Amino acid sequence: MSNNKLIGAAVIGQSGGPSSVINASAYGVIKTALEADCITAVYGANHGIVGILNDRLMDMSKEDPAELELLLHTPSSALGSCRYKIADPEKDDTDYKRILEIFKKYNIRYFFYNGGNDSMDTCNKVSRYMKSVGYECRVFGVPKTIDNDLFGTDHCPGFASAAKYIATSFMEVSRDSHVYDKGMITIIECMGRHAGWLTAAASLAGLSGDGPDLIYLPEVDFDMDRFVADVSRIYKENGNCIVAVSEGVHYADGTFVSEAKTSGTDGFGHAQLGGLAARLADVVKAATGAKVRGIELSLLQRCAAHCASATDIEESFNSGKTAVEAAIAGETGKMVGFKCDRENGYKCEYVLFDLEKVANFEQKVPLEWITEDHSNVTEDFIRYCAPLIRGDLVMPMENGLPRFAKLKKVFAE
Amino acid sequence: MSNNKLIGAAVIGQSGGPSSVINASAYGVIKTALEADCITAVYGANHGIVGILNDRLMDMSKEDPAELELLLHTPSSALGSCRYKIADPEKDDTDYKRILEIFKKYNIRYFFYNGGNDSMDTCNKVSRYMKSVGYECRVFGVPKTIDNDLFGTDHCPGFASAAKYIATSFMEVSRDSHVYDKGMITIIECMGRHAGWLTAAASLAGLSGDGPDLIYLPEVDFDMDRFVADVSRIYKENGNCIVAVSEGVHYADGTFVSEAKTSGTDGFGHAQLGGLAARLADVVKAATGAKVRGIELSLLQRCAAHCASATDIEESFNSGKTAVEAAIAGETGKMVGFKCDRENGYKCEYVLFDLEKVANFEQKVPLEWITEDHSNVTEDFIRYCAPLIRGDLVMPMENGLPRFAKLKKVFAE
Repeated sequence: MSNNKLIGAAVIGQSGGPSSVINASAYGVIKTALEADCITAVYGANHGIVGILNDRLMDMSKEDPAELELLLHTPSSALGSCRYKIADPEKDDTDYKRILEIFKKYNIRYFFYNGGNDSMDTCNKVSRYMKSVGYECRVFGVPKTIDNDLFGTDHCPGFASAAKYIATSFMEVSRDSHVYDKGMITIIECMGRHAGWLTAAASLAGLSGDGPDLIYLPEVDFDMDRFVADVSRIYKENGNCIVAVSEGVHYADGTFVSEAKTSGTDGFGHAQLGGLAARLADVVKAATGAKVRGIELSLLQRCAAHCASATDIEESFNSGKTAVEAAIAGETGKMVGFKCDRENGYKCEYVLFDLEKVANFEQKVPLEWITEDHSNVTEDFIRYCAPLIRGDLVMPMENGLPRFAKLKKVFAE
Repeated sequence: MSNNKLIGAAVIGQSGGPSSVINASAYGVIKTALEADCITAVYGANHGIVGILNDRLMDMSKEDPAELELLLHTPSSALGSCRYKIADPEKDDTDYKRILEIFKKYNIRYFFYNGGNDSMDTCNKVSRYMKSVGYECRVFGVPKTIDNDLFGTDHCPGFASAAKYIATSFMEVSRDSHVYDKGMITIIECMGRHAGWLTAAASLAGLSGDGPDLIYLPEVDFDMDRFVADVSRIYKENGNCIVAVSEGVHYADGTFVSEAKTSGTDGFGHAQLGGLAARLADVVKAATGAKVRGIELSLLQRCAAHCASATDIEESFNSGKTAVEAAIAGETGKMVGFKCDRENGYKCEYVLFDLEKVANFEQKVPLEWITEDHSNVTEDFIRYCAPLIRGDLVMPMENGLPRFAKLKKVFAE
């Protein structure tokens, strides 16, 4: 940690899949940086690291402060996102030379990167490279991922809002699917490729008695026969059954249950999943003869800002703010994270983690929070998750619809 | 219209697919009936007409008034719904004899039926039968349908809340799907078997610049080649394309585009639709090579009470209230409807329609509100729809989640 006051410009980029509150974090960075004496200019990289490589930097001081404040409630990445996989600087430093060139051009001394696992990896590599060439630049990861799978931190900004949307939707669909004199089976697919946090969040709907009967996470192997037996048993007992299932459930050999139905990969080589709910619905329908409906929450769960967690918005904003404050204080190569206390109410403290440790590690739901029969989560999960979705959301509205930020996007010369 | 004050019990039943605000209407009936001098008891039929046939009536006076009030914000049919097709009384009066028996047993003199097209038909038949056998009973339809397809009324309770949810979701998904440096095509399927009102409501998202590029309704024939050409053109021009499509789009010969993928029918002989978005996504992907995502809003759009229209809640409650007041005043065989004025602000007046005229007629989107190229709606639709989703929703919440009504369901002896 260096004690000198580093004077220069700041840039913030957003990367990876968006969330309902990633812009709240960006606003935390932008507002704090705009107010900081030692930060001479604040730029937004258009489409993350790609925007830096292409010299597409937007001057944040040109935006209307009221519109910037609306970023607290605007879903998706307002600066634009990317899925660009940057090379290891030790293997291929082409991109890094270009980044350094841009950093020098604008005298950028503060780099904030707002994203998930892959983004923290990018951030860490940039930090390493700048250090290796002796260019003084404070590099910070500002976390975001609805997947909640970043190392070290109690939870990740974005998760709670998606969790609240999922729990709310389960409550509502549960009321809907119990309405007829003849029962039905409803299978709802939630996001989460390798970590089941979001699917587990469906359990919060159970706090009011409207939760799923069964929950299947990718942390344990999926057994189709057992799944069909579980669903059939509940349906027989209750005349109804609601199931939460993660898109990433897989057989013991590692193949995704949804796999045979899809093809194509995203920019990082992850298989693109989808259609699992429909597939499981087919299997269950054939086995039970019941009315079965498969529902995929799809993109809605990661962009439903109208149903965001007020706690999540506050913590996301503070993550960005903390990153700027810590960078000004001399820290670098870190990610902001949360240390939470649930003993006497809920308290969240902002702490720093080494990017080196965070990058590319996936934090999964602890196995002891999954019931022994692998078809639900325990009270421990609910104790962990419930405080995160609380708070009173006051959504800016206009004529009955959300009022999202409209940025001018004035590009720097 | 009879002027005598009819003394006796009232029963309310709910039928058909639920909505976010059907319980607000039921609450309008229940509260008004509980407060009326001439109504001696208020019963809720468990699962609509089936609950009457099975003598399953719940005593509404036994419920906690605070829980009843929560019905204003509780989705789905709290009394239970059904999809029971009742015979024509002139052809088979078995069910009607049983209904009369139950009505006599509880001295039921007021019958309120809360539902859509098929429910208004049931209601009308009951009215006709009671008249034919000389049993004095005031029969009222209390409308509900997200499909917005009931005859005569300006719009239907339930439509506006689903419309608000759809417009909100389009705004959010639009932000999400425009986030990357590489564009994508997003196809979102909305409910509406024969009428395109809900799909058309996606256009409201355009008021803030986040609307769909293309909208396809079932009021006009669907042409797959033209559809693919439309989508390809927009994607080529903008690098992005968002499409709203009704589940009920059909070819010129009447077959549903989704049809080959589904089988089975609901209790009324309607084909069960679904999977259209995925199917169109496949076609468009093959034609363009673009990243394409199909999203089905599914049940979520009809039960998302957390995103209900405050105007819809108020009008739904008032529909129920008006039905009871009109019945007490001597009217019978009617449905409550709306007559709206949009000239100087928005005003809604409650009017009565003859059930005979309402039953089984489907009100579609006027062809002049669909653009000539059949791929969007006109400003007239937006002028019609925009006022319906306004109002400040204050949702009762508990620990970050909606607080829905919990009824005791005390069955009458």
